[in-house]
Amino acid sequence: MGLLEGKKGIIFGALDEKSIAWKVAEQCVAEGASITLTNAPIALRFGKIQELGDKLNAEIIPADATSLEDLENLLTKSMETLGGKMDFMLHSIGMSFNVRKKRPYTNLKYEWMQKTFDVSAISFHKLMQSTVKLDAINEWGSVLALTYIAAQRTFPDYSEMAESKALLESFARSFGFHLGAQKKVRVNTISQSPTWTTAGSGVQGFKEFFDYADQMSPLGNAPAEDCANYCVSLFSDYTRYVTMQNLFHDGGFSNMGMNTAVLEWAKGLKD
Amino acid sequence: MGLLEGKKGIIFGALDEKSIAWKVAEQCVAEGASITLTNAPIALRFGKIQELGDKLNAEIIPADATSLEDLENLLTKSMETLGGKMDFMLHSIGMSFNVRKKRPYTNLKYEWMQKTFDVSAISFHKLMQSTVKLDAINEWGSVLALTYIAAQRTFPDYSEMAESKALLESFARSFGFHLGAQKKVRVNTISQSPTWTTAGSGVQGFKEFFDYADQMSPLGNAPAEDCANYCVSLFSDYTRYVTMQNLFHDGGFSNMGMNTAVLEWAKGLKD
Amino acid sequence: MGLLEGKKGIIFGALDEKSIAWKVAEQCVAEGASITLTNAPIALRFGKIQELGDKLNAEIIPADATSLEDLENLLTKSMETLGGKMDFMLHSIGMSFNVRKKRPYTNLKYEWMQKTFDVSAISFHKLMQSTVKLDAINEWGSVLALTYIAAQRTFPDYSEMAESKALLESFARSFGFHLGAQKKVRVNTISQSPTWTTAGSGVQGFKEFFDYADQMSPLGNAPAEDCANYCVSLFSDYTRYVTMQNLFHDGGFSNMGMNTAVLEWAKGLKD
Amino acid sequence: MGLLEGKKGIIFGALDEKSIAWKVAEQCVAEGASITLTNAPIALRFGKIQELGDKLNAEIIPADATSLEDLENLLTKSMETLGGKMDFMLHSIGMSFNVRKKRPYTNLKYEWMQKTFDVSAISFHKLMQSTVKLDAINEWGSVLALTYIAAQRTFPDYSEMAESKALLESFARSFGFHLGAQKKVRVNTISQSPTWTTAGSGVQGFKEFFDYADQMSPLGNAPAEDCANYCVSLFSDYTRYVTMQNLFHDGGFSNMGMNTAVLEWAKGLKD
Repeated sequence: MGLLEGKKGIIFGALDEKSIAWKVAEQCVAEGASITLTNAPIALRFGKIQELGDKLNAEIIPADATSLEDLENLLTKSMETLGGKMDFMLHSIGMSFNVRKKRPYTNLKYEWMQKTFDVSAISFHKLMQSTVKLDAINEWGSVLALTYIAAQRTFPDYSEMAESKALLESFARSFGFHLGAQKKVRVNTISQSPTWTTAGSGVQGFKEFFDYADQMSPLGNAPAEDCANYCVSLFSDYTRYVTMQNLFHDGGFSNMGMNTAVLEWAKGLKD
Repeated sequence: MGLLEGKKGIIFGALDEKSIAWKVAEQCVAEGASITLTNAPIALRFGKIQELGDKLNAEIIPADATSLEDLENLLTKSMETLGGKMDFMLHSIGMSFNVRKKRPYTNLKYEWMQKTFDVSAISFHKLMQSTVKLDAINEWGSVLALTYIAAQRTFPDYSEMAESKALLESFARSFGFHLGAQKKVRVNTISQSPTWTTAGSGVQGFKEFFDYADQMSPLGNAPAEDCANYCVSLFSDYTRYVTMQNLFHDGGFSNMGMNTAVLEWAKGLKD
Repeated sequence: MGLLEGKKGIIFGALDEKSIAWKVAEQCVAEGASITLTNAPIALRFGKIQELGDKLNAEIIPADATSLEDLENLLTKSMETLGGKMDFMLHSIGMSFNVRKKRPYTNLKYEWMQKTFDVSAISFHKLMQSTVKLDAINEWGSVLALTYIAAQRTFPDYSEMAESKALLESFARSFGFHLGAQKKVRVNTISQSPTWTTAGSGVQGFKEFFDYADQMSPLGNAPAEDCANYCVSLFSDYTRYVTMQNLFHDGGFSNMGMNTAVLEWAKGLKD
Repeated sequence: MGLLEGKKGIIFGALDEKSIAWKVAEQCVAEGASITLTNAPIALRFGKIQELGDKLNAEIIPADATSLEDLENLLTKSMETLGGKMDFMLHSIGMSFNVRKKRPYTNLKYEWMQKTFDVSAISFHKLMQSTVKLDAINEWGSVLALTYIAAQRTFPDYSEMAESKALLESFARSFGFHLGAQKKVRVNTISQSPTWTTAGSGVQGFKEFFDYADQMSPLGNAPAEDCANYCVSLFSDYTRYVTMQNLFHDGGFSNMGMNTAVLEWAKGLKD
């Protein structure tokens, strides 16, 4: 019997088979859940989510996560399709307009930063607010978002995404109080190792950044498959009293101060 | 000889004699600094900042802190007036539009939230970005913003200001890296006790909230005068290597788990 | 199929059916694990652990957790009995000699404090060191200890146990590095809500302390059964890359700043 | 007029002119304080503290910081010599017996660990407990101890000193509550950058460790002189409401996640 037998959920952000969200969707269904999938219309066009939907027998409901109308439609359709309220939701959305356009952090364009925050963080509040409005989540449900340790410490190349993640984690705490007190629903974020996704690996300097974290972490970087397993455990009834937390899934990176393996590795880097 | 002898700075956010910023301005001048004062045009109209300017012989330069143009004008005029680059700046600005209009946290109006973030947090990035653009700060300068522990823990009535403060503190860390590496300038936030300002004391439930924190803290809530002293120490050369930190000035509140004094006090509250 | 099918482990600290460790033992066996049980000789005499051993078909191996000899004997016997190396271990041991003898924190007896540390924290290092010496744990094994938030924030009545838990959590981080780098083994602590165990409920003022935390936490205090489930998830393969972490299992307590429910409850307390 | 005019204090741990404590003593006297100096009898023999005492006109009172009798004698003599209760105290003591004897962290000798804790951390509790017993500190006094970030994150070579510092910081929080509530006295720790002291620089691998932190920190490692200035600010009346805090004085190291300057530096290391 699966860990999520009989549970219903929504997975945001699956693009292709390298996406963490893709693997979470697969694992949730393998554990007995029924799900819907969603992504932005443009991502649906360029990604392979239809392939995933077919494989998992999951309906795909396009939604611009910055649009309350789209989010409400997503929740309403998911409840119709799956035959009831949601038990879990994964928010896995992030995009920096200033990074994409190579604006340095000390010379940001603020309209772009607002868009970055809207897509990457405020969408999470909007999702939860829509859930309250439509009474779309069951008691003891579980809401998760993926985040990164740049919310706590500075990785200069991560730029305004540091602030996006700080916002996201704050929304998890604040809304976690309300959903907890009203509905026994828990809200957490998973702070995941750098991961070889299509989005990540295109960024300049990503390999060095990935390898640095991999060398620093006693277990190495956490793979996407393991992140999917961790999400499953946090959606399951094994973790019902964990809420308002930011949970590091990073092979130990977050609590390392120095690891001589990093120095050995760096010595071998070519200039 | 004062701690800030020969230093130049800008103080944001003085409204009346209860404001922390008001007391910081007084203390900085008493310690030998020369300063300019700024606030939003509307605050200038309703507050008593002119009185403070007269007393301290400090020029008042109006600025909407969300306007890059106004911030650049403020920096340019301050450099002219004071005869050189800045050594310190205090950001003491916060305002929540959803709280003011009594929208609950689970039913926010997002346009208002964007305005809240813009006024309360993004203005801090804009200030630092303008400083870089105009090369307006001296080496070993010190930049401070006032924040609140709601950035780390949930105080439900604080609503979207929790996220504003999380953003603000993240900007301090991120920009602190750049200003530090380029200019030896440090950037920190002070996380201050609840304070009896004109802004704060008008909020419903503020007295209970203030007394709760006061009872919890072994030293009691930190008064505004002491916050001003702490700001002076952080502007001075006694703290040159403290950077990218969030510093609690709260009589110990942040590290208390439980204090039976709170229970004794609460028993005496009238319904 | 259970989450711990085929896994072998040792559970420290089961005294009677109210103990968290008792419930962890039951849940681990229900999930397919085979285990041994251990406690101090005196606890074996006064508790009901034999009843638990019979029920779970688990051998009971007495051990004074401050004795390297006893710990080595425990590991050796466990490997013999269970037919291989360990996959998981739970450390659930805590006892304050100064609290028991009502010495105030500002007038501690240091010999007792040393004993408190030895029993409550250093035993955890000794267990891991013995595990290394005897090569007694499998790759991708999981080691857990139970802790309390007094390691981060002050609860005056908790006295020297605050320091014991700070020590314990530091051992988890430090040894987690070594076990991770050498053996892919993870080490974490669970910071659990106040729990109605036989040990806890005997302490003066415990009810008030329990109720305070219960009112503060949006989900209420986490029950022992749920803590057992959480331990199972952390022993399972769903959490393989979580290491060197302190994980709050507390219904949200750790990230609350203020909850007016606490004030409502406190008003009703009789003097 | 100095920041510490009229204040009285005790400085532990000055060995020679490279010691942080040495520079703190000099700065305190330069700021108007009168002080006594103390160190262990053996350190007095090998160091140059007499030279410092002569220069500062400060009495030297030997004390084994693990001995309650010696600490009480130190406090009594200091009150006699300086003519009143203390206003500030600096604890700057640390020594690891397992590190000195090159025992690896996974094979510690526990008697040595107990001694390490006694010298490096429990001595701090003993000092504060003696202060309470003898009523030896004035209201609004300030107690400081020097610590290191290994209390939060793992630096494998730091070994059991990680636990010593975790203990030390926990004592500061716990005792800070009691001294705050009873006496308005504040207790804090300063978490200082790696520093070129005689003690530090003798350790194998220290140069690499120092340079790593220096490259990671946007301001570079904090020098001992600046640490002394920071101590002065925390002893002064500018920081009266800061208590139970661990304060990083590290050029930003603690909040850096990655700095490419580290990689550039590491590439240049010779094997």
